[in-house]
Amino acid sequence: MNKIYIKDIKNYFNKEINLDAWVDNIRDLQYVQFVILRDSTGKVQMTIEKNENNLYLNNLISSLSLESTLSIDCKVMENEKVKLNGVELIPSNIVITSLSLPELPIDIKNKDNALRETRLDYRFLDLRREDNNLLFKCQTFIEAMMREYWVNNDFIEIHTPKISASAAESGAEMFKLDYFGQKACLSQSPQFYKQMTMASGFEKVFEIGPVFRAENSHTSYHATEILMIDSEISWVKSVDDVMDMEEEWTRYYMAKLKEKYGEEIKKVFNVEVTDAKSKFPRINFYDAKKILKEEFNYVGVVPEDLERKEEELMCEYSKKKYNSEFIFITNFPYSARSFYVMKDENGVTQTFDLLFKGVEITSGAQREHRYNNLIDNIKEKNMNPEDLSFYTEFFKYGCPPHGGFGFGLARLIMRIFEIDNIREATLIYRGPTRLKP
Amino acid sequence: MNKIYIKDIKNYFNKEINLDAWVDNIRDLQYVQFVILRDSTGKVQMTIEKNENNLYLNNLISSLSLESTLSIDCKVMENEKVKLNGVELIPSNIVITSLSLPELPIDIKNKDNALRETRLDYRFLDLRREDNNLLFKCQTFIEAMMREYWVNNDFIEIHTPKISASAAESGAEMFKLDYFGQKACLSQSPQFYKQMTMASGFEKVFEIGPVFRAENSHTSYHATEILMIDSEISWVKSVDDVMDMEEEWTRYYMAKLKEKYGEEIKKVFNVEVTDAKSKFPRINFYDAKKILKEEFNYVGVVPEDLERKEEELMCEYSKKKYNSEFIFITNFPYSARSFYVMKDENGVTQTFDLLFKGVEITSGAQREHRYNNLIDNIKEKNMNPEDLSFYTEFFKYGCPPHGGFGFGLARLIMRIFEIDNIREATLIYRGPTRLKP
Repeated sequence: MNKIYIKDIKNYFNKEINLDAWVDNIRDLQYVQFVILRDSTGKVQMTIEKNENNLYLNNLISSLSLESTLSIDCKVMENEKVKLNGVELIPSNIVITSLSLPELPIDIKNKDNALRETRLDYRFLDLRREDNNLLFKCQTFIEAMMREYWVNNDFIEIHTPKISASAAESGAEMFKLDYFGQKACLSQSPQFYKQMTMASGFEKVFEIGPVFRAENSHTSYHATEILMIDSEISWVKSVDDVMDMEEEWTRYYMAKLKEKYGEEIKKVFNVEVTDAKSKFPRINFYDAKKILKEEFNYVGVVPEDLERKEEELMCEYSKKKYNSEFIFITNFPYSARSFYVMKDENGVTQTFDLLFKGVEITSGAQREHRYNNLIDNIKEKNMNPEDLSFYTEFFKYGCPPHGGFGFGLARLIMRIFEIDNIREATLIYRGPTRLKP
Repeated sequence: MNKIYIKDIKNYFNKEINLDAWVDNIRDLQYVQFVILRDSTGKVQMTIEKNENNLYLNNLISSLSLESTLSIDCKVMENEKVKLNGVELIPSNIVITSLSLPELPIDIKNKDNALRETRLDYRFLDLRREDNNLLFKCQTFIEAMMREYWVNNDFIEIHTPKISASAAESGAEMFKLDYFGQKACLSQSPQFYKQMTMASGFEKVFEIGPVFRAENSHTSYHATEILMIDSEISWVKSVDDVMDMEEEWTRYYMAKLKEKYGEEIKKVFNVEVTDAKSKFPRINFYDAKKILKEEFNYVGVVPEDLERKEEELMCEYSKKKYNSEFIFITNFPYSARSFYVMKDENGVTQTFDLLFKGVEITSGAQREHRYNNLIDNIKEKNMNPEDLSFYTEFFKYGCPPHGGFGFGLARLIMRIFEIDNIREATLIYRGPTRLKP
């Protein structure tokens, strides 16, 4: 396919070309018509004088609705007077490849002219905005760089099943379905299966795929369908090995993002992307509580976990003291964590959260890979090991010490681009009252 | 993390190292113990003489079960007599990081010693086999090369929702669920949403993600959960542009696969990987029927589609006449295709299948992007446009001419590695009677 993109149009001065594009704007004046054409790479002006020879084209443009698409045979001319990059197209023929209705249900030039819910109803139009186009180009690049790091380091990509027999963990938040007469549910997390592949000798794995949470939450950061980023590695000596990997990986994709899209993001989102160069501090949970008290005179309501305000303050502390927008909080109380995390001989969990710009973005841990300890962990949570036997089975026949982390991509995107609502950071959002488009 | 991998062990001759590995085999002789250690990169021998000094290690090894994992402090020695790469490890200390039960429920050295269904019950052990490890390394690489092509060519990666309001198309094969009191279903295909992004001006997109089919099929190539590979491009001039893209893309990842893993695949799977260099022939559906009659004296039962036998013969023809393992069959009858394909002014569909080694692996088309024609198409299929209004809406406000293709990854993997059952070509298979592990 040889579609010419508008960003490359200057390579065709004085040449006859065919250009496919959207009609972005029309100024139909007394003696001349100006049409601004658009594709995903930029905009360019087409100029048509009003005269006898152009009668067909003049009439076509006069009756044309914005957002239609055209296939244009034209000559590319240099013209200093044209504000838009000094280029104008002089058409010899125009074919309307699709004709838009004259009135759009939302204004696609300015997001503030419609309510968010209306824009979500017409998400396919909302996505035509420049900022949204850039957002999903950048998301593509971020994922590509995440995977590039993993593939270059011999990780195996896994795709774990999304339909499973009902599992024990937090059953209330699961979507249930009938599966040929059996009870089944949609996966909330690839946790069990990524650990399974550790028992299979896959050693280093990653997965990018959807999970589903039947939570009736209407906040700005909850969704029922979430794209999860997961990784897990074998042969760790301690949870520090997991943090080392996540830190190196984060630095890799953030630096690449800044390099390639930093300026454009600055221009369109008014956000400075960090290259994540500074070492990420690692602060023990109880030390963090002490810092919050001593430095900020702040005591959270929940003694055994961090609340949003405390996360914000610790990020402030990290930025000021370590010049890092990222900070690890380590060794959370067992009561705040799942049964599958490892505890050392003193009962200290080998866990961490990674905070970024005031918010927890990922959660990780070394896992308990020793069968007997795992059973003890389960009992300590007042759960029945029988209910988890399909999972604990993985640890009976040898399994390397391992750990990993996971998080929802949209929450990271929200932080990087400073978008305040997950509905705007997801291609097509799903929530309790949003099942369309 | 500084885990030393066995493939690199020769870099450490005469050095003291720490090695983490699985116990692959033990020979406990009168005067010496040989332990074969394994990780995902290879195997190496550890040698322990039986003597007073080694009493602790000797006892540890004597009581050790296969498939346990060890952390070993050892010296790496060159020893020509050792058949396994001329290397042996002399340990000074060994820690058992996980102890396997003495008896494994399946033989992980030889797949033929257990029924397939039993192996699937213990898939986490089945995956420890060398061929499975290689298979998923290669699958990782294939996906990486597919994405590399797309990302290098400015495609946007999309993640479309997997839960939707019940749609009209083939409702019988959909998994249904209750969604906060609304009726919802699991996505069978990202078709509608990838077309939506064309209306959003994304121009070139791809998606790798799961879809779900509630088909009660028990064949060797059906699954209820399928990892789909999808792509769609805007501004096509004809369906040939879509085939051009798919052909170039296929050639890209196949050639890379052959280059990197061709020899290993030959050794382990006894399969020669094609580099897909020959041009893929494009043969019109009715011409194919003629060829089948004239060259093979074969007339299929169904006049309006190709059956498996006909696909096999056309691949034979392509290999012989064009030296290509790939062949496009184009312009299928409309009765064999969905309502959303484009027909030209003579009613000829702008569709194709790509066949590979005797089987259809992908299906593609230019889509009908003109609203009025789309409504006509729907009516011609005796469907009600009202039921599809959420989808036809995408085409009311301008949409570039576009087309694309999609297919299940496992079927491609089956063909490349010549695996006869989809259950063996999927990490964790889901079928009507298989919901575990």
